[in-house]
Amino acid sequence: MKIELAENYGFCFGVKRAIKIAEENRQSATYGPLIHNAKEIERLQKDFQVALTENLDDFKAGDTAVIRTHGIPKQELETLYARDVHVVDATCPYVTKPQQICEEMSEQGYDIVIFGDEAHPEIRGVKSYATEGAYVVMSVKELEQIRFKEKIAVVAQTTRKVDEFLKIVNYLIPHYKEVRVFNTICNATFENQDAVRDLSKRADVMIIIGGKNSSNTKQLHSIAQAYCPDSYHIEGPDDIDDAWFEGKAYCGISAGASTPDWIIEQVIARIKTGSKSA
Amino acid sequence: MKIELAENYGFCFGVKRAIKIAEENRQSATYGPLIHNAKEIERLQKDFQVALTENLDDFKAGDTAVIRTHGIPKQELETLYARDVHVVDATCPYVTKPQQICEEMSEQGYDIVIFGDEAHPEIRGVKSYATEGAYVVMSVKELEQIRFKEKIAVVAQTTRKVDEFLKIVNYLIPHYKEVRVFNTICNATFENQDAVRDLSKRADVMIIIGGKNSSNTKQLHSIAQAYCPDSYHIEGPDDIDDAWFEGKAYCGISAGASTPDWIIEQVIARIKTGSKSA
Repeated sequence: MKIELAENYGFCFGVKRAIKIAEENRQSATYGPLIHNAKEIERLQKDFQVALTENLDDFKAGDTAVIRTHGIPKQELETLYARDVHVVDATCPYVTKPQQICEEMSEQGYDIVIFGDEAHPEIRGVKSYATEGAYVVMSVKELEQIRFKEKIAVVAQTTRKVDEFLKIVNYLIPHYKEVRVFNTICNATFENQDAVRDLSKRADVMIIIGGKNSSNTKQLHSIAQAYCPDSYHIEGPDDIDDAWFEGKAYCGISAGASTPDWIIEQVIARIKTGSKSA
Repeated sequence: MKIELAENYGFCFGVKRAIKIAEENRQSATYGPLIHNAKEIERLQKDFQVALTENLDDFKAGDTAVIRTHGIPKQELETLYARDVHVVDATCPYVTKPQQICEEMSEQGYDIVIFGDEAHPEIRGVKSYATEGAYVVMSVKELEQIRFKEKIAVVAQTTRKVDEFLKIVNYLIPHYKEVRVFNTICNATFENQDAVRDLSKRADVMIIIGGKNSSNTKQLHSIAQAYCPDSYHIEGPDDIDDAWFEGKAYCGISAGASTPDWIIEQVIARIKTGSKSA
């Protein structure tokens, strides 16, 4: 039986990159959770001695601080550098980008609109790079309360939906002379969905790996089922039933955004063993 | 009877300005029609000896060339200067703006999208200021054919509707990293409509002046009628019936975008005479 992974699946580029960086920096600590996945953080702690602290003051001169994928506020980064902490930056490059845009645009006199959640670590970081005039909004209603100058630069939290972003932009354009729109939305989630749709059209059995309560995994499973009725949502190798693969020639695999590669690899190994023994 | 003009009416700022410039430059010629209004051009020729030519070669050293409100291509302007023609620029400042944006943005490496009519003099002028990579489009369909680089600057023909402009922008934002939107749409037409709406709520008789076939005048009349049933659309003073003003206390006046002030003044004088004699 042919086994094929979707073109995009599981952890996004930024998460994979951050984990690799953490693994390369044993005896370090992340300031805040590296990624939003407790199991993976546990594994990094156990296998690579990468600790986790929520307290900036835990870092002393000579310590190694790994910066989380979501980034941290500029001022806190500067504090770490000032203390001669060895800083290893695992901020996702798709998050570094809006940070840089905020910094450059506010230096150039633009008002900044950040479309996102004020309380999210990514946005707290991004906003900190604007020297002044940065407004975090989630809706047009909030925008209507603000009087901007003539020129506005707009960025979005990487995980926002582009349709919602356009609503913000469509309010601003008729009201202001220049609206400089930076599309900082990351398509990883949508790419996983597109890839599972594509693969499930070809495969005759689909395995979707991810937590039973993971909303994005359930979405992947529902898309797969629409094209391939023999689609199964599992959490790990133990959930597999060899009967699923009887008479099948082409098995497609995808995984939710919080599923680490090692679980995916265990599943593939289990399917291969099963299909050999069958 | 109180007579009040709408807060915005008739010729827009750019047209008024151009006529004033032409009147101050007797014995000159405009290259192409100064504005899109034949009666007014006739008047400038008769009373101010401002001729009209469509041929650039008619201008010799020492001649005075008045540049039309819509602007002309950069290369033709340079030809006039090179020939030592005395150039008087009556280009509307709202048209000069997208010209400048095109020049600056293409120098900075942006691809330029101009939302407008390729054949319109304004757009031929605006486009000429982009050094390279300027695309004139009227629809998303046309945009889909074009592969842009990463950064796009967008301007609009001054008379386009903002809703249509947003469609163009909304296609670009999800597809490109940076879309720098310059809202170069002029609100003069909409301002006339807003002002007639406002005035007709207060007045008990409304006079709307403009050609019987003028689409924007008919729109003004229709708006006025919605709030003030005694609203009349006239072309000039001769169309007035004194009976309209019997028992009225408050007469509101507006005029279409192609109606010169001197016709409006004649109408006001006629109403005053009529109401005195009544």
